Amino acid sequence: MTHSLLILARNAGAYHRLVDEARLPDLQIRSSSDPEHITGASECDLAFGEPSLLATVLPKLTSLGWLQATWAGVEPLLDPKLRRDYVLTNARGVFGGLMSEYVFAYLLAHERLLLQKHASQQARQWDKTAPGTLRGKLIGIVGVGSIGAALAKTAKHFGMRVHGYTRASETCADVDLYFHSDQRLEFARDLDYLVTVAPNTTGTRQLVDAAFLAALPARAVFVNPGRGSIVDEAALAAALREKRIAGAVLDVFQTEPLPPTHELWRAPNVLITSHTAALSHPVDIAPVFVENYRRLLRNEPLNYQVDFEQGY
Amino acid sequence: MTHSLLILARNAGAYHRLVDEARLPDLQIRSSSDPEHITGASECDLAFGEPSLLATVLPKLTSLGWLQATWAGVEPLLDPKLRRDYVLTNARGVFGGLMSEYVFAYLLAHERLLLQKHASQQARQWDKTAPGTLRGKLIGIVGVGSIGAALAKTAKHFGMRVHGYTRASETCADVDLYFHSDQRLEFARDLDYLVTVAPNTTGTRQLVDAAFLAALPARAVFVNPGRGSIVDEAALAAALREKRIAGAVLDVFQTEPLPPTHELWRAPNVLITSHTAALSHPVDIAPVFVENYRRLLRNEPLNYQVDFEQGY
Repeated sequence: MTHSLLILARNAGAYHRLVDEARLPDLQIRSSSDPEHITGASECDLAFGEPSLLATVLPKLTSLGWLQATWAGVEPLLDPKLRRDYVLTNARGVFGGLMSEYVFAYLLAHERLLLQKHASQQARQWDKTAPGTLRGKLIGIVGVGSIGAALAKTAKHFGMRVHGYTRASETCADVDLYFHSDQRLEFARDLDYLVTVAPNTTGTRQLVDAAFLAALPARAVFVNPGRGSIVDEAALAAALREKRIAGAVLDVFQTEPLPPTHELWRAPNVLITSHTAALSHPVDIAPVFVENYRRLLRNEPLNYQVDFEQGY
Repeated sequence: MTHSLLILARNAGAYHRLVDEARLPDLQIRSSSDPEHITGASECDLAFGEPSLLATVLPKLTSLGWLQATWAGVEPLLDPKLRRDYVLTNARGVFGGLMSEYVFAYLLAHERLLLQKHASQQARQWDKTAPGTLRGKLIGIVGVGSIGAALAKTAKHFGMRVHGYTRASETCADVDLYFHSDQRLEFARDLDYLVTVAPNTTGTRQLVDAAFLAALPARAVFVNPGRGSIVDEAALAAALREKRIAGAVLDVFQTEPLPPTHELWRAPNVLITSHTAALSHPVDIAPVFVENYRRLLRNEPLNYQVDFEQGY
């Protein structure tokens, strides 16, 4: 049997080339960066691409058996109005390194007073203010999957203490202490850094609310490269305005792009990075499809299957 | 025999308390933060403190047998006009962690476009510019002692390739390839990052000169948390002005504080941090003295002895 694959992504050309280079057997490929210009969608039993684009053509993919997302987040495909009669797999295991670079860029910048030192330089001031250190500081990680585990490993490299907040699993050796659902405020109590990398699920929505923020120490910095839905943005803006936490580094928001009038743009001690913490690079993501296609041919279970109810 | 110790440092009180707490036998301690107000200097056979302060009282320390410096750099004590009839030990093995945090704060800030993203935020711009990554990049480390080895380890953690430039030793497993004296320009040729942490010696003075800078690729960033003497500052300023390298992060200078009129304050793509990369914290340095004192009592060779001729 020959499989027919639709690649739909803004950088469809790069994905097409990388999948071609893998010389996969029994595979016909068509690719596009524009959902408006797709032909033969009804013949495709496989799809590979961006969830937001694929969601718009899902009704036309009448033969679809498996869809590989190029992103970790698959919210556009979880809309209850859309079909769920296919196997959905997402991109996992490839973002840990980039996320770790993002989070520790900002943790180190905070300790090393990078922006303050830069301002002193503008004024040609020889600024002897002593920087801080990550050594001995406590990081709390919400969501300890492959990304959380990568963060925990880097935290340990820099001599930090690591707490994890998870739904269930306690498999990461770099986490010193685990907390679960009802221990939310206890988890928050003593953190120097709170980093949220949990998926968008009913269990994580608005997890970081006014009560959670109030439980954090005043020295705490909140870093969110995960999902905008995890935080109550009004409560966060209030906590920042009233200096009840030391700062926030935000990559994701309830509404993206963040509207120009949104109060978070100019809240004190907030840094905004426009959903660029861990972009999907074709060279990293194409191998996830290739490996899963080989599993398909061998009738093995596919990696990274998404449970439509759980949302990840 | 009872030993008599002079502690001379700006934070003499903290050092005095920490050495007291170690309850060392047969030790009398006097401490001061002011070289002008020292009594009984001629009785002291031991000294512990800042090289710049101790250099001023060295002629009065007529009984001196051993001096433990609180810094890594001991240049003030190497002045040929000063006595050398004592054992000089410096602080080593304690700066690797802080140096690593400093260097990687700036490497990650460079890759993650931290200052550019901050400027976009000031303009409320949703800036989707894709950041870079340390993964696969090449770092060249000049001086692979304990600090260089710590940098190499962190570089490997982030998936970088590591080259080392040393006088002799090739003992660090995290260095992929070593270069030596006559391979200076070959070492420079392909670097993404050049980091200099070598001591100030005749072999390292002006090592990073016009020829070395010309051999670096245009994408290279130079980070110097080591010694100001290693670089030809006029050549560096020219390379930055002409965009022949991508940037510089400078913690140390030929003259400190850097004079307000110095061209490096405002050279393009330069970040200045006022000799704060790895400050000596009494809690880290006091144990170096304590361990060496115990070695003295046991008639064992002291750790970290400085060769007055080599300069480290």
